[in-house]
Amino acid sequence: MTRARTDVEQVELANTAFYEALERGDFDGVSDLWLDAADLADAETYTGPQDPDGDTGAGTATTGDPDHPEGPDSPDGDDGADAASDGPAIACVHPGWPVLTGRGEVLRSYALIMANTEYIQFFLTDLRVSVAGDTALVTCTENILSGGPAPQEGDELGPLVGQLVVATNVFRRTADGWKLWSHHASPVLAESGDEEDDETPA
Amino acid sequence: MTRARTDVEQVELANTAFYEALERGDFDGVSDLWLDAADLADAETYTGPQDPDGDTGAGTATTGDPDHPEGPDSPDGDDGADAASDGPAIACVHPGWPVLTGRGEVLRSYALIMANTEYIQFFLTDLRVSVAGDTALVTCTENILSGGPAPQEGDELGPLVGQLVVATNVFRRTADGWKLWSHHASPVLAESGDEEDDETPA
Repeated sequence: MTRARTDVEQVELANTAFYEALERGDFDGVSDLWLDAADLADAETYTGPQDPDGDTGAGTATTGDPDHPEGPDSPDGDDGADAASDGPAIACVHPGWPVLTGRGEVLRSYALIMANTEYIQFFLTDLRVSVAGDTALVTCTENILSGGPAPQEGDELGPLVGQLVVATNVFRRTADGWKLWSHHASPVLAESGDEEDDETPA
Repeated sequence: MTRARTDVEQVELANTAFYEALERGDFDGVSDLWLDAADLADAETYTGPQDPDGDTGAGTATTGDPDHPEGPDSPDGDDGADAASDGPAIACVHPGWPVLTGRGEVLRSYALIMANTEYIQFFLTDLRVSVAGDTALVTCTENILSGGPAPQEGDELGPLVGQLVVATNVFRRTADGWKLWSHHASPVLAESGDEEDDETPA
């Protein structure tokens, strides 16, 4: 109990530190809070086949022997597997963006966002933390107030914009504290109901 | 290696099974693929204080003893912790929706979506699976083709709508296979700089 409680507190601190680093425009701080290659040394990554048909029913996966999930034979059975060469398999989705994977892509996106953001503040609500083993799942609502660069010389800030965003953050326990494995943030477009989303560009 | 490779395959199968169950409108199948209370018996959940100020800097967490993360003493030290009473701490975000948590909310949302969806097909692309210990992170692009109920008697289907959605799915290993801990799906609204697929309908 105490262990888990302390884990939860530590995860919450890491989550808070992440948003505070973003508020400060602290690129190194953000960078430090993402897993790096050493942290994920034990992980195995696989990039699935880019099936042109793509149908989920069309066999995007083949199973070797479901009766022997731990089968130690055939160590070379990794046909099609493609271990990530550009760093660990971290993943990041900014609101309305496609998936970014690997430290290169993910950190570049933060550099880009910081370069175009003069001011940003996160008011976190609905925070939930769940820890299971060495992984933690955090969900929260990011009530964002942000402003771009000043439109004219002499103006202090660009217009402030409010955004309602929800985030799912996955952390891994490392020797250096809890680090982000995945961040997925998305705009809240509708009041739920059964409305899917009418602003989707279809 | 072989073990991890097999884990990745099993996770990919569970991910595929999830989308196939959605395509079939198979509520029980979807329900079976989400963690239930027994699966997360070892997990600790905490719902953060609903701080009216909400600022990330306002001390939403206090740390007990960071030097003893594994301390087994004081089993009752869960002051402030609020174990989820409505099931395990699963979380789900549909495109444009707020966060849903707990099996009750999550499964009701699927019942609602299935009731309003006559036809849905997922073409998964950009699949990436990463397994670390008992947790797996899956990201993919869901190229969705869906249709609602027929607008008029005699029509076969409502108009078909295409949607470009990205998803982050987190699975946990259980005695009964890999199960969903979190699903976060969001619309891709804009072309980003490092966009990889040109089939974007935007």
